[in-house]
Amino acid sequence: MSRPEVGELTVPDRTLMGPGPSDVHPRVLRAMSTPLVGHLDPSFVEIMDEVQELLRYAFRTDNEWTIPVSGTGSASMEAAVGNLVEPGDTALVPTNGYFGDRMASMAERAGGDVVRVDAPWGEPLDPADVAAAFDEHQPDVFGFVHAETSTGVRQPDVPELTSIAHEHDAYVIADCVTSLGGVELRVDEWGIDAAYSGPQKCLSCPPGASPLTLNDRAMEKVLSREEPARSWYLDLSLLEGYWGEERAYHHTAPVTNVYALREALRLVAEEGIEERWARHRRIAGVLKDALDAMGLALNPDEAHWLPSLNAMEVPAGVDDGAVCEYLLDRYDLEIATGLGALEGDIFRIGCMGHSARPENVTLLVPALAEALEAQGADVDPAAGLAVMRERLGER
Amino acid sequence: MSRPEVGELTVPDRTLMGPGPSDVHPRVLRAMSTPLVGHLDPSFVEIMDEVQELLRYAFRTDNEWTIPVSGTGSASMEAAVGNLVEPGDTALVPTNGYFGDRMASMAERAGGDVVRVDAPWGEPLDPADVAAAFDEHQPDVFGFVHAETSTGVRQPDVPELTSIAHEHDAYVIADCVTSLGGVELRVDEWGIDAAYSGPQKCLSCPPGASPLTLNDRAMEKVLSREEPARSWYLDLSLLEGYWGEERAYHHTAPVTNVYALREALRLVAEEGIEERWARHRRIAGVLKDALDAMGLALNPDEAHWLPSLNAMEVPAGVDDGAVCEYLLDRYDLEIATGLGALEGDIFRIGCMGHSARPENVTLLVPALAEALEAQGADVDPAAGLAVMRERLGER
Repeated sequence: MSRPEVGELTVPDRTLMGPGPSDVHPRVLRAMSTPLVGHLDPSFVEIMDEVQELLRYAFRTDNEWTIPVSGTGSASMEAAVGNLVEPGDTALVPTNGYFGDRMASMAERAGGDVVRVDAPWGEPLDPADVAAAFDEHQPDVFGFVHAETSTGVRQPDVPELTSIAHEHDAYVIADCVTSLGGVELRVDEWGIDAAYSGPQKCLSCPPGASPLTLNDRAMEKVLSREEPARSWYLDLSLLEGYWGEERAYHHTAPVTNVYALREALRLVAEEGIEERWARHRRIAGVLKDALDAMGLALNPDEAHWLPSLNAMEVPAGVDDGAVCEYLLDRYDLEIATGLGALEGDIFRIGCMGHSARPENVTLLVPALAEALEAQGADVDPAAGLAVMRERLGER
Repeated sequence: MSRPEVGELTVPDRTLMGPGPSDVHPRVLRAMSTPLVGHLDPSFVEIMDEVQELLRYAFRTDNEWTIPVSGTGSASMEAAVGNLVEPGDTALVPTNGYFGDRMASMAERAGGDVVRVDAPWGEPLDPADVAAAFDEHQPDVFGFVHAETSTGVRQPDVPELTSIAHEHDAYVIADCVTSLGGVELRVDEWGIDAAYSGPQKCLSCPPGASPLTLNDRAMEKVLSREEPARSWYLDLSLLEGYWGEERAYHHTAPVTNVYALREALRLVAEEGIEERWARHRRIAGVLKDALDAMGLALNPDEAHWLPSLNAMEVPAGVDDGAVCEYLLDRYDLEIATGLGALEGDIFRIGCMGHSARPENVTLLVPALAEALEAQGADVDPAAGLAVMRERLGER
């Protein structure tokens, strides 16, 4: 308990191409050094309105109930699951990645019975399997992962999945942690009842305040629960008092994180959401083609490719952890190894938000080639670089 | 869903003398604009170690299990209550303020049976009443509020309270949201099993990562629970994997908020924790004496006075909301009205961390006098100012 001697904050200058956080735009960093106002200050209430409006734009929704949850992405996830799943409800969740299991754990803790729809890690859900699971289990709530950060798989056919659920009067929760602001996502048009995300992925905002949206139908279920949600902190019926018209005190909002999210979302609006989706496809497409030309295998099929998170197979004989360390030590460049069932099998290379830029790809492709060669992998860097230069030159 | 037009972030330059957030030191604001590293980056792991060491110093504890929870103060509160209270446990909570009720709500949601020890709002708990409640209810967990933000009451006799609890083999949770870093608090010496706080009070750090400490005895209860905590996000047995030796992924930590907390805690260590407590007493003492000389009544007895949050009675005939608006409009100065049972009866004037400075008191005393006079209150500004000048001159 003696007085600790801790020096000035000095962090390495990383380029973040892992599964998040991504590089933060200087304007967002600057917003975070803005002095605080109180969380009930009239000027902050105005900022709350603006953030809600900007979030609706990014989610492509008119949902009134669209807010940043005061925590990181898992907090907005638990806010969705823990409020929509009531004790005794049946919750249907997927098996095709790490985050389906997390949903299951949250639904169980909320008092729900969990059933599963199967698909292997690295594959999306098949609507036929979802329909069969609905017929068998008649779930009340169906959660799926739109952009699976553990596998790099984008779930297609979302409107088909939501239609099946609605035919069974169920509520649909979509995990959009790695899609919001980077990959086509249309909450209203696709019939999603509740969607959540994290700010540190395609929005390129530091983590701490996490997007959540619920339509009126979902919010009615939340507001008519027989017993309160099991978390006070994440109870949406209480948060409704703060983010709704009343603006009543619930907890102290993370003022600075809300400032940051506002600035990050302004950048989304300035760019235009559809152009932003296109940029992610374009820049990640260059990365993908360059890796392909180098002889490296990308994991998911083109049809399920997730531009914001690229899963690349670890070449035979390569120590994946050593590659990541090499890149971090020599190039201050972060990529990640696999998670869960794909640990040791894939690298996860993010291409999100402010990290989805030509300069980041231009650094990553040769650096990764070098790191793999240092591990004795058989790659063709020249071919990869040629593709990269050609494709980037086309822009 | 059209593209929102939201201008550059422009916030008023407030002086924050309300119940929190308090003014943030420029060094902490600057730390928040530091570019991100990944939440599993080796450099971040080092920062985590440093923050834990600094938190132990501020809490006056050797508890290994001392961490910032990824959320605002209510998240660290629910992490303490929701993990220590198991279904079927009896939780004893106080009735003497707003935050005892919040504890009760969290304990109920955790599956606990809530019983209460009575004291009026504005008074501390009497150890004899606590002992009687223990004899009657035999609670498993006892929560109390060390510094009650809704009433400005500091709970004295903490070692006496913890002794009673430990004689009954119960666990003690202390709400230190408005005391950590501003008011004498000795977690180990006083026998507190679990304590939580918020960063935006006496630590003068933006909200978003909130201090929590548990001793081994408390952590053993958490780790031997029969069923998991009802919140996945706040499950300390899972967080143990990330903040403990393993450093395994649980969720993405709010990297920037951890940077900020580190810098705020460095300022605490530089000043010295005991000198910081003394400064709060000294500066808030000037404020208190000046208000007293002006003819205004401070609510709690001297023996229970909480320097970081001063509860002042609303003079007869004065519209409390209008006074707060006046100060905000004319002086960019925030103080707050009462909350809960004391709504309309008191003003709450914070004197926390970087806001506990002579310049803030020097602004507040005459500005408040002016605002009260505008409401027709019978105050004696000259006497208040004389006391203030004399006392500040003594330093």
